[in-house]
Amino acid sequence: MKKQPIGVFDSGLGGLTILNALHRELPHEDLIYFGDTANVPYGSKSKAAVTKFSLAIARFLESLGVKLIVVACNTASAQALAELRRRISVPVMGVIEPGAERAAQTSRNGRIAVLGTEGTVKSNAYPKAILKRSPQARIIQQACPLFVPLVEENWGKKPAAELIAREYMARVQKSGADTVILGCTHYPILKPVLRKILGKHVTLVDSADTLAQAARAFLTARGQAAAQGKGCVRLYASDDPARFKRLAGYLLPGKIGAVRLKKLDL
Amino acid sequence: MKKQPIGVFDSGLGGLTILNALHRELPHEDLIYFGDTANVPYGSKSKAAVTKFSLAIARFLESLGVKLIVVACNTASAQALAELRRRISVPVMGVIEPGAERAAQTSRNGRIAVLGTEGTVKSNAYPKAILKRSPQARIIQQACPLFVPLVEENWGKKPAAELIAREYMARVQKSGADTVILGCTHYPILKPVLRKILGKHVTLVDSADTLAQAARAFLTARGQAAAQGKGCVRLYASDDPARFKRLAGYLLPGKIGAVRLKKLDL
Repeated sequence: MKKQPIGVFDSGLGGLTILNALHRELPHEDLIYFGDTANVPYGSKSKAAVTKFSLAIARFLESLGVKLIVVACNTASAQALAELRRRISVPVMGVIEPGAERAAQTSRNGRIAVLGTEGTVKSNAYPKAILKRSPQARIIQQACPLFVPLVEENWGKKPAAELIAREYMARVQKSGADTVILGCTHYPILKPVLRKILGKHVTLVDSADTLAQAARAFLTARGQAAAQGKGCVRLYASDDPARFKRLAGYLLPGKIGAVRLKKLDL
Repeated sequence: MKKQPIGVFDSGLGGLTILNALHRELPHEDLIYFGDTANVPYGSKSKAAVTKFSLAIARFLESLGVKLIVVACNTASAQALAELRRRISVPVMGVIEPGAERAAQTSRNGRIAVLGTEGTVKSNAYPKAILKRSPQARIIQQACPLFVPLVEENWGKKPAAELIAREYMARVQKSGADTVILGCTHYPILKPVLRKILGKHVTLVDSADTLAQAARAFLTARGQAAAQGKGCVRLYASDDPARFKRLAGYLLPGKIGAVRLKKLDL
């Protein structure tokens, strides 16, 4: 069991930030990443569609013998996690709970803002998860559909990124939130511009580290954590692996190995 | 045959600008529109994926008894048209040829710029079609991946749109092009800001009107044009028809009828 890999999936590239965090936190683990580039983006699609994609990926990862599945995509975590846990025999962790936990612990004034895709915002998954922990919290949500294409264009440092972010952040600033959840795996790339707009007194919660710590705690508690050897990373994409590899260069620090094509059975 | 509808499809909403033009040009024709909202966007996907989606849609339209299929999506026109014509018995028209034709006729200095998605640019479909007509033409292509999400956010008039457009247009202006093809159905929404940046001496070619005229000429020549009655429009989406209907309000002038859900057999 200790030798089995961990499966990580996302609608596309964004989840590589989670893969990085897992690799840092669990350096002995073998990791398998699946980017659903044939069906990206999930953020604007229906719950039924997102659930269908997520199930097909989870079944593929299960067939590779993973011991744990990490849903790196916020939209899939928000919309498909319950169904995945019903239908998949391997344990499944999402990004919502760790992010909500961290935000609830961090906020001093109880005002929390959630940034996410349309799908994540519509699901109300973050507000529900936060209110379970802090029933008094006041939460606002802001969908930021232009953030993902901005990051995928590698335009995070251009003036347009700031202008777009200022537009989305107007409501967040007005709400008086002292804690802002970056509820999409692409958004941490925009941390510098968000910090510039929101100021130092606002804490940006990025679920990657929290999730990686939760994954380590989970595996350790079950005696399933790999204890030695250098973990390797295997990458799959459901469409255009060459493009995936090229864009992954913006998100991953090290050299990227082969990206294999795996079409989903939908 | 005259009474049979015309089928129009696009990866999502953008093709509604073509639907409008067809409705204006051919007011007696019944039109069926299919928006592949389950698989949008096509612009960043592989040729194999775009062809698979396009074939499934064309087969569905064929099953509804259409007399002509109009591929309103530039990416699908660029990547899947030949395959559609091989596999579908109904005539198929794309947007590339009419746009290239118009641009070749319009340009005085023979310098033409093509704006499109990554997929359209990569296919070189516009340069090939233009060079067939004007072998001396000098063509530059510019992928503009942020334009579609900008339009879908209804942000075409915000300062961010101008900043992003200025970035993309820098190369176009440098090229000295006097004719710019709006090679994606979403881009005509950005005409005001593009005109502001490029100036009045540059002609913006929008394939919607040209395509609609070509469709009328084609049906008239074959004696298949409907001559009387008010044509009706039927809308299908492959995912989340409620969202489709809401966003379609930005693109269609009149009242929007029911949007039916039709999942594709892939």
